Amino acid sequence: MRIGVLTSGGDCPGLNAVIRSVVHRAVADHGDEVIGFHDGWRGLLEGDHRPLDLDAVAHILATGGTILGSSRVRPEQLRDGVGRAREHVAELGLDAVIPIGGEGTLKAARLLSDAGLPIVGVPKTIDNDIAATDVTFGFDTAVGVATEALDRLKTTAESHQRVLIVEVMGRHTGWIALHAGMAAGAHAIVVPERPFDIDELTAVVGKRFEMGKRFAIVVVAEGAKPRRGSMDFETGGTDVYGHERFAGVARQLAVELERRLGKEARPVILGHVQRGGTPTAYDRVLATRFGRRAVEAAHQGEFGMMTALRGTGITLVPLAEAVARLKTVPDERYAESECVL
Amino acid sequence: MRIGVLTSGGDCPGLNAVIRSVVHRAVADHGDEVIGFHDGWRGLLEGDHRPLDLDAVAHILATGGTILGSSRVRPEQLRDGVGRAREHVAELGLDAVIPIGGEGTLKAARLLSDAGLPIVGVPKTIDNDIAATDVTFGFDTAVGVATEALDRLKTTAESHQRVLIVEVMGRHTGWIALHAGMAAGAHAIVVPERPFDIDELTAVVGKRFEMGKRFAIVVVAEGAKPRRGSMDFETGGTDVYGHERFAGVARQLAVELERRLGKEARPVILGHVQRGGTPTAYDRVLATRFGRRAVEAAHQGEFGMMTALRGTGITLVPLAEAVARLKTVPDERYAESECVL
Amino acid sequence: MRIGVLTSGGDCPGLNAVIRSVVHRAVADHGDEVIGFHDGWRGLLEGDHRPLDLDAVAHILATGGTILGSSRVRPEQLRDGVGRAREHVAELGLDAVIPIGGEGTLKAARLLSDAGLPIVGVPKTIDNDIAATDVTFGFDTAVGVATEALDRLKTTAESHQRVLIVEVMGRHTGWIALHAGMAAGAHAIVVPERPFDIDELTAVVGKRFEMGKRFAIVVVAEGAKPRRGSMDFETGGTDVYGHERFAGVARQLAVELERRLGKEARPVILGHVQRGGTPTAYDRVLATRFGRRAVEAAHQGEFGMMTALRGTGITLVPLAEAVARLKTVPDERYAESECVL
Amino acid sequence: MRIGVLTSGGDCPGLNAVIRSVVHRAVADHGDEVIGFHDGWRGLLEGDHRPLDLDAVAHILATGGTILGSSRVRPEQLRDGVGRAREHVAELGLDAVIPIGGEGTLKAARLLSDAGLPIVGVPKTIDNDIAATDVTFGFDTAVGVATEALDRLKTTAESHQRVLIVEVMGRHTGWIALHAGMAAGAHAIVVPERPFDIDELTAVVGKRFEMGKRFAIVVVAEGAKPRRGSMDFETGGTDVYGHERFAGVARQLAVELERRLGKEARPVILGHVQRGGTPTAYDRVLATRFGRRAVEAAHQGEFGMMTALRGTGITLVPLAEAVARLKTVPDERYAESECVL
Repeated sequence: MRIGVLTSGGDCPGLNAVIRSVVHRAVADHGDEVIGFHDGWRGLLEGDHRPLDLDAVAHILATGGTILGSSRVRPEQLRDGVGRAREHVAELGLDAVIPIGGEGTLKAARLLSDAGLPIVGVPKTIDNDIAATDVTFGFDTAVGVATEALDRLKTTAESHQRVLIVEVMGRHTGWIALHAGMAAGAHAIVVPERPFDIDELTAVVGKRFEMGKRFAIVVVAEGAKPRRGSMDFETGGTDVYGHERFAGVARQLAVELERRLGKEARPVILGHVQRGGTPTAYDRVLATRFGRRAVEAAHQGEFGMMTALRGTGITLVPLAEAVARLKTVPDERYAESECVL
Repeated sequence: MRIGVLTSGGDCPGLNAVIRSVVHRAVADHGDEVIGFHDGWRGLLEGDHRPLDLDAVAHILATGGTILGSSRVRPEQLRDGVGRAREHVAELGLDAVIPIGGEGTLKAARLLSDAGLPIVGVPKTIDNDIAATDVTFGFDTAVGVATEALDRLKTTAESHQRVLIVEVMGRHTGWIALHAGMAAGAHAIVVPERPFDIDELTAVVGKRFEMGKRFAIVVVAEGAKPRRGSMDFETGGTDVYGHERFAGVARQLAVELERRLGKEARPVILGHVQRGGTPTAYDRVLATRFGRRAVEAAHQGEFGMMTALRGTGITLVPLAEAVARLKTVPDERYAESECVL
Repeated sequence: MRIGVLTSGGDCPGLNAVIRSVVHRAVADHGDEVIGFHDGWRGLLEGDHRPLDLDAVAHILATGGTILGSSRVRPEQLRDGVGRAREHVAELGLDAVIPIGGEGTLKAARLLSDAGLPIVGVPKTIDNDIAATDVTFGFDTAVGVATEALDRLKTTAESHQRVLIVEVMGRHTGWIALHAGMAAGAHAIVVPERPFDIDELTAVVGKRFEMGKRFAIVVVAEGAKPRRGSMDFETGGTDVYGHERFAGVARQLAVELERRLGKEARPVILGHVQRGGTPTAYDRVLATRFGRRAVEAAHQGEFGMMTALRGTGITLVPLAEAVARLKTVPDERYAESECVL
Repeated sequence: MRIGVLTSGGDCPGLNAVIRSVVHRAVADHGDEVIGFHDGWRGLLEGDHRPLDLDAVAHILATGGTILGSSRVRPEQLRDGVGRAREHVAELGLDAVIPIGGEGTLKAARLLSDAGLPIVGVPKTIDNDIAATDVTFGFDTAVGVATEALDRLKTTAESHQRVLIVEVMGRHTGWIALHAGMAAGAHAIVVPERPFDIDELTAVVGKRFEMGKRFAIVVVAEGAKPRRGSMDFETGGTDVYGHERFAGVARQLAVELERRLGKEARPVILGHVQRGGTPTAYDRVLATRFGRRAVEAAHQGEFGMMTALRGTGITLVPLAEAVARLKTVPDERYAESECVL
């Protein structure tokens, strides 16, 4: 069999572990040939690729990033993207293509699959917001990095007697905020799924100071917004590509809480450290299992599918289902996090 | 409501997070009173305890160990253990007792529950071998510690051109060996569930050197044993308490592999670092969710149950089911780990 | 002997290790009594304190922050600050006062010492900018945190094909930027001691892309500024306390480099994570040695002095010398860091 | 100029950082050519080498081990070792050879230097026992790894109410034991420089239990031995190469302390994790500075020298001085560590 693999979208710890696992299983178990496309869909559309043998993946299991590069190019946005993809797949004699990526990548994967290409997708997002799988790799690493930062920030907040508003990743969902906030014992957790009321948030943090505590930690997902009319809020608008710009919710919250509480409040934006670097053991194992399952699926002719974790097992779900809806933080999970002041 | 909590058995990262969560939910949400028994069942049998309020658990979320202490005392091993437990529960006016522990603890919990005491168990083991829950807290931390050690050992093995036999915890099951071995890219993984054949293992490691590689990493669970007749193997016998002593499988394997391969082979025994210290974010979240669910169960009168993770949700399972069988590494999971040389 | 100890100024990993060491040496070796003042000089000026015995410092060696609290109150800024300090020292029967703090704290210490109070200072700053000591504790931890973040950011910058401008602490000196930049292999390091020329910096980063590299990492100290006339630069002005506000050099650099290079450039501000949390082993050892030496100095009547590291030994230097000048990054150290593109 | 570089002896975090720095300075600043010998002196003696350009060292700064490999081959042990070394240096047209290694390597370096070869040594040992330099790279990483393990072990020792005897590296000197023990707050530190008296050690640990504490941590260097006649002690003898074998001091101490104290005592041997894996920021900076200074020395014709850290500066010392004596833990440093029970 000849298998093509590519990584697309934002950086995510575990991408290299999937690539390695695909090559290991394909080459070592099945005697397949594997090629890697450069920079995601761009490599497939332009026929830019290289062979991947066991040596090529010998030292990448624990490394962040992706040896194949990535980009945000999407075939459906290009003139005749599907046709060019089909052409290169045929030219290269590929029996399967394994794209590794997030929601956008999987939508493109579905498009190509519907057009008859032999696709097995592997889901990837640090945000953990793909409904068809219990967990995505990268999420555990992101939560771990955020939690370690929060552990450090707590002693500093206490020493400086401050409110720290810590912004973590999560444009549409609050999974990282929820887990890191719970893991670090935050005093309030603000997620995009539940627009916040600034009066309530002020009351919560204020109550903590009334109780004699000397600091507070508020964890906020970057995509969080106030309830309509709750406070003046600068929205970020859209950038030249039409992507939503973020407005700096932590910065705005810090200003507002400082004004209302009369306590020093400071924003801390964790940023890209959450999506780079060596993956946790959890993410390496999950990524490795996904890679293996994708190769198996290809050999069993199960195309148009995506690998998924369900409970403790790896399974396949239709790509159509995979991208049907965003997995948001449900009320009962948010309720579990109820912070004690 | 009055709730008693205790921690029993070996150390496990996340114990304090459960205690904190029990106190948070009981005191802050329900206005309950909570007392903590000292040193596991001993504290319950002897009425040795202290009150636990919010201040008592204010700084323990990220700490290893248990603020309540632990011991291996088990009520069924003591004369009238059940009677004394019942007596103290009555005297203290407890409406619920939440024991946090492993297989032995949960068996004792079932015994007391069958005797009519209001018990909600919380499972705890770094070994992840309790069948009724997908995962136990402590496991992720243990795997993380072992993986970080393996990452470090790889460069040293390569520099010294050695075979390193790295012994990780796991007396009866190979979950830590499996996950850490996969996460670190070990070249062979040896688990108790599959007695090893020394000839096969020698062949695997030897093949790696034949391929021109300069080192090899073998991960072995402490409870691993050779297939009968496969090699001379010193068994550890039992200690004065009747517990199985371990024979030092890594040490014996190192001697045997060095003799057979003519390559330097060295044992590394990771030992207790795997069960101490600050828990990972994953374990803190899981422990916190378990603690909350146990308090809810108590308030709903769901006794004789144990908290469990199933998929992404926390649920309750009967204590009877919880201890019915050991969760061993199944063949398909072991197959997933097939190491590439 | 009766000894008072206080921590003043910004948070710094290792403060608790000094407090513990002072108590250990004083109480265990000399049978002294130790009291801790709350919130730095404020506690001394208001007589707000508590006794510190061995139990009080039993679990703090590895913790960030300070169990005594801190503040930025300075005796010389208060009416009769010196008189009130003298009064409380007399009332409490103190034979020595050990203030632990940065430049401002040590200046106040000198003032009180000149006024006849028995002072032994311990220098503290993550910035490492006190000339009289080779190194200050807290610096190694700050560099370690920044380096780990840079390690993570590298893979993300590469995957996204971006220029990342990473702002680290350092208002007046570039020690953290220099060491973290060297440790992580940054492609340019910008320090306050050497106002940058935006054309040169653009050329350096641009050359890297011309060489075919796909990303660049620029480390910049928060206090860095462009050479006069080199680029439009928003200065931060001063806040209500007269402290210099920082202008967000990374943010401005990112905008400018993106405009000039036509490559995506993003700022990352590491912020307070650099000054909180558990100290490195290096900082714990240095802090412990400083604490011990301060107690010895008190017992030998060597007042008006500050502990210092010189080579491998701990010594004492006059407070006057300690605050005479800022230790800036010298040319030869900056030259050592010459980045290879 | 043409420069040869090699790494010899045991693994040590920072070796790759030196190699990278040598190549950066030589190639980028001076336009030199650099070749790397494989497996230490073996590569020089057999002419086994490869070119090292900027690409070859592009991703190695933060990696453990050595890309050049290492071995324990020493030229003086081989027939005509010096002659063969001279021959290959001449053949390859080398103007300088930079060996990176420990005591044995530096002795060999001196031998070759005395024979007229253009040598600049770089000292390397995790043990920090080379007298001519304040610190060697690798030491900080080793201490950091040991301290992190001790932090974890403390909670486990407390939970299990045990004495843990933790064996760290250090055959002839106790620097790692001293620093890790101080950093982690050990209750006793045992170093090779001061043969221990088992009665005294028992008394120290016993006193802790008398004070009501529930556990104790003893840190012991692998080369520690009892005072003559203090206790039965199995010595390790020598192996086939005449190297001293180690007797497992932690294991023997655990048995003896358990017998005398009636408390569970367990040995933990940290082993090779101390010398592998990614170096700390401190070690990367020191290694980078050493590499640069070695290239400068070569260009200035300062041969027969070794790089050294003195205070905050990098300097050169004669190889003769470098290996003249072992740097042992002096009494005053040991006194600083006096443990509080």
